[in-house]
Amino acid sequence: MNLPVLNEQEIEFLLYDFLDTENLLQRPRYHEHSKETFNATLETARQIAEKYFANHNAKGDSQEPTFDGETVTIIAETKQAWDAFAEAGFLAAHYEFEKGGMQLPEVILRAAMAYFNAANVATSGYPFLTIGAANLINEFASDAQKETYLPYMQSGQFAGTMALTEPNQGSALADIKTKALPQADGSYRLFGTKMYISGGDQNLTENIIHMVLARIEGAPAGTKGISLFICPKYLVGENGQLGARNDVKLAGLLHKMGYRNTTSTVLNFGEEQGAHAFLVGEANKGLFYMFQMMNEARIGVALGASCLGYQGFQYSLEYAKGRPQGRHPSNKDPESPQVNIIKHADVKRMLLAQKAYSEGALALCLYASSLMEDSKTAESDEQRQQAFKILDLITPMVKSWPSKYALRANELAIQVLGGSGYIREYPVEQMYRDNRLNPIHEGTEGIQGLDLLGRKVPMGNLENYQLLISKILETSSQFANDSELSDGSTKLVNAVNRLNQVTSHLMAALAKGKVDSGLANATLYLDIFGHTLVAWIWLRQMAVANEKLKAREALSADQIHYYLGKLQAGKFFIRYELPQIYANCDLLESLDSTCLEMQEDWF
Amino acid sequence: MNLPVLNEQEIEFLLYDFLDTENLLQRPRYHEHSKETFNATLETARQIAEKYFANHNAKGDSQEPTFDGETVTIIAETKQAWDAFAEAGFLAAHYEFEKGGMQLPEVILRAAMAYFNAANVATSGYPFLTIGAANLINEFASDAQKETYLPYMQSGQFAGTMALTEPNQGSALADIKTKALPQADGSYRLFGTKMYISGGDQNLTENIIHMVLARIEGAPAGTKGISLFICPKYLVGENGQLGARNDVKLAGLLHKMGYRNTTSTVLNFGEEQGAHAFLVGEANKGLFYMFQMMNEARIGVALGASCLGYQGFQYSLEYAKGRPQGRHPSNKDPESPQVNIIKHADVKRMLLAQKAYSEGALALCLYASSLMEDSKTAESDEQRQQAFKILDLITPMVKSWPSKYALRANELAIQVLGGSGYIREYPVEQMYRDNRLNPIHEGTEGIQGLDLLGRKVPMGNLENYQLLISKILETSSQFANDSELSDGSTKLVNAVNRLNQVTSHLMAALAKGKVDSGLANATLYLDIFGHTLVAWIWLRQMAVANEKLKAREALSADQIHYYLGKLQAGKFFIRYELPQIYANCDLLESLDSTCLEMQEDWF
Repeated sequence: MNLPVLNEQEIEFLLYDFLDTENLLQRPRYHEHSKETFNATLETARQIAEKYFANHNAKGDSQEPTFDGETVTIIAETKQAWDAFAEAGFLAAHYEFEKGGMQLPEVILRAAMAYFNAANVATSGYPFLTIGAANLINEFASDAQKETYLPYMQSGQFAGTMALTEPNQGSALADIKTKALPQADGSYRLFGTKMYISGGDQNLTENIIHMVLARIEGAPAGTKGISLFICPKYLVGENGQLGARNDVKLAGLLHKMGYRNTTSTVLNFGEEQGAHAFLVGEANKGLFYMFQMMNEARIGVALGASCLGYQGFQYSLEYAKGRPQGRHPSNKDPESPQVNIIKHADVKRMLLAQKAYSEGALALCLYASSLMEDSKTAESDEQRQQAFKILDLITPMVKSWPSKYALRANELAIQVLGGSGYIREYPVEQMYRDNRLNPIHEGTEGIQGLDLLGRKVPMGNLENYQLLISKILETSSQFANDSELSDGSTKLVNAVNRLNQVTSHLMAALAKGKVDSGLANATLYLDIFGHTLVAWIWLRQMAVANEKLKAREALSADQIHYYLGKLQAGKFFIRYELPQIYANCDLLESLDSTCLEMQEDWF
Repeated sequence: MNLPVLNEQEIEFLLYDFLDTENLLQRPRYHEHSKETFNATLETARQIAEKYFANHNAKGDSQEPTFDGETVTIIAETKQAWDAFAEAGFLAAHYEFEKGGMQLPEVILRAAMAYFNAANVATSGYPFLTIGAANLINEFASDAQKETYLPYMQSGQFAGTMALTEPNQGSALADIKTKALPQADGSYRLFGTKMYISGGDQNLTENIIHMVLARIEGAPAGTKGISLFICPKYLVGENGQLGARNDVKLAGLLHKMGYRNTTSTVLNFGEEQGAHAFLVGEANKGLFYMFQMMNEARIGVALGASCLGYQGFQYSLEYAKGRPQGRHPSNKDPESPQVNIIKHADVKRMLLAQKAYSEGALALCLYASSLMEDSKTAESDEQRQQAFKILDLITPMVKSWPSKYALRANELAIQVLGGSGYIREYPVEQMYRDNRLNPIHEGTEGIQGLDLLGRKVPMGNLENYQLLISKILETSSQFANDSELSDGSTKLVNAVNRLNQVTSHLMAALAKGKVDSGLANATLYLDIFGHTLVAWIWLRQMAVANEKLKAREALSADQIHYYLGKLQAGKFFIRYELPQIYANCDLLESLDSTCLEMQEDWF
């Protein structure tokens, strides 16, 4: 069974019906574009993803990268994929024309990225990280630094990494230990070890530009003393010429459960004389710079998770359509023919859950991308600020919700296939293994929960929170009297009201200085807020489908089925998933301290 | 970090405090035993498990069995483990003394098996299946058949398998196609293909005895036409002498995500002249016989799942105790030392959830084993019947609850370790991969849900159901006024009342002939009933701990901590987990038809 990479109908719906992406053409930055150039971009992505990424998704898993002490070897198809991606201009596509880019909107490029993720999430890691590293340079580095590195990161000659994590620090960035010693020439020498650095070494590009967080000697403790450095594998001269090998060495590869074709590395900086490195922007502002990009990376991780969830859904759907087994419970005649398993209510439940999770997650990621776009190019200052505020608030949920629930989708995809789902002769077990990474990297669920409840919600006296809530209630009231949508609308309002109560209680506790108990169940808060947010995303998708179905005579049978499916998946989410929040709402509201009070010795 | 295999304190608590296993010594069958012989058995199991099973758990995963077209090769340590298991007498331990056994109770042997499962669930598969196959012969075969096979399956010369599943039938046993042609000498010849047969071929034993479900030519359609056969790899003469190679051939190995050191095979019966096979018991009663054993196998699967969950809990616990990272949210001083992550509320939550899931699952499995014991050896006929009735009712939950929630525990173990959890350099990712099999084999969750709601609950006008409910309410009322237990007691009563309402609604629907809609959400019913059942299991564990703590002066500090931990984990389950059922109760009560109504074309 050959699975297509994503589904064009779904992407088309999300971009042009759910989000009004065509409207971006009104903005000056996109005057030279058209729906045709947008779609041509997506079509190119789809073709390259199918030809150069999907072809080695399984092979990169079974023949993972190796390191012989000297050289890292990655299967050759990876290099071909990298080259195809670079040659099509995707490494630079979001830059302005005059910077060698295609001046394409964020949301179109994220949709394009979805094709690569769906085809091969591990190989997609290399361009994904390179784009992120280049963005950091483009945003915060000096003109000379930009000139030295950017053209070659855009062309695909150099790759990039983000080197944050250290062996003894993990999520606690405040405790980064890598040292930067200032040199007479204004450069620095780095000493320290970074761990879990994706793409930290490879044999795809002639050079690798590491964006490294380190602490300049004498800098203040904690997050206020962290600076950002460019640290290339090979020093770079004029016109991209490679100089000496820098003192950054691969200590070893880590061997992941999934996501295997992305190398995961331990890098030693300064085993000898120190790794040459160049400060980006101002000293001690490194974490601030990194966070700008981390939000992009968080959407990126979530998009990868969503695509894995979606592919598992599509695969198990096709399997269920073609696999006869059993009969309806009401049919006791063993001589009657078996039905395909898609006819069984429980299989439909597992498929509907996958659809609700993965399409909800995909829609959430593209909505976040549209907010990112709006925060930069919306017409008015107010619109730009509003988009930024909502994006800033929801980023923890955008990161974590798809990571958690698209993994659940993959768990169900395996279950639909039964024994076949558990063996490597079928692709869904790899999706499940690949996807298990996503709740960990770019901020674990626990970190996202603390970020949401401890920082993003209270910010500006709950201004951003109120803004989002008002938008959700606006949608709900809009459809309160529509026969198809009123049930969902009412249930969403109830959920929002409950969320508001819980939030008030928690804010009151935090205001009274009950910081540790107020934040003790922050991960549950992340979950209930995420579910409410996605219920809104679903109601909006349902509203579009409902509108389309009102002009049913203009639709093909296939379109009618597609929209009916959207309605049913939305109903599923609102009936089966949204009510799950209430038990956790009660726990949160009561400031339950069962976990906080548990003692180490009692385990 | 070297992880012990299970935890003797936990097993001791479950056997002698939670279950009154010592009381079995009163029964005539165990008069020659003592608590010392019970414990010596457990200690032997622990030692063999640590020495011969734990040693190759990781190796059997990374160097999985291979097949060169002629021979299956399994890493040599597996054979040593098999031999040690057999030599210690565990293959025969539950048989009477005069049958060469040790006449040990079921619950002690299950606890012993837990050590092997915890050490290496995949290698444990071989003895586990052999015991099951031998039990089938012992229970239903003729004396001549017993004599031919049993001594060698007890000694470890022969292994056994259970060959049910076929490529095009999966869960639908009614549609088994393997044919049995009667021969003049009273034997049969088998023709057909079996798939996912664990241990279907190996290089551990000189012979393999397959217990095969097949359909005698002309038998009725469906489950009423299935017979059980003994089909050895090599024909067996007198005194275990091997004869000709039988016509059952390994078509190939399947390559699983986990559980890798257990071969998973496709077997062809009758590629040539037909595989010699011997009918067990009466024709067309095969499924009835198999189901007797399947219930044992279901507890076995659940026990394996529970042990994997428990090992992940123990590993992540030790990791969390020794891993410094971050500070409490209320501490803003970056120069203060980091705390170990076990101090973080969210990490405690993840550990408590693992403790609640895995210890709850383990307790449930051993309780089920004690019911199995009681159903055979309890003093009065009534007690035996009562035990059988409750066991029969709860078996679907005993199989499915640990399989689902111990996997969730492993998911959390990975999350506690963060990046380390995701790499093969640490053991928890293998546990997660191994455990993913358990919701699939020996009846998927969907199958268990239908079995529970469609057969086990309504049976005898809900007699068994009412019996269990009255037992649960008895426990609750017993502790309704205890200051430590009253909250849990009240919440359990509320849950039971709600379960009763939901059950009544569903039974009424089924009685009205609404079979398909009544059973549409059977998997959710399985889940809410399972959670209620485990809440009872937890309240009973809490009650024991509470009682012990009343005589605190007689306890060591370690014991006090252990019992406080039991209380807290029970509270966690009742506060964080049990309330999750209510949303699904509402769905079930409303006979929600969202899934049933979903159409294939709409996906």
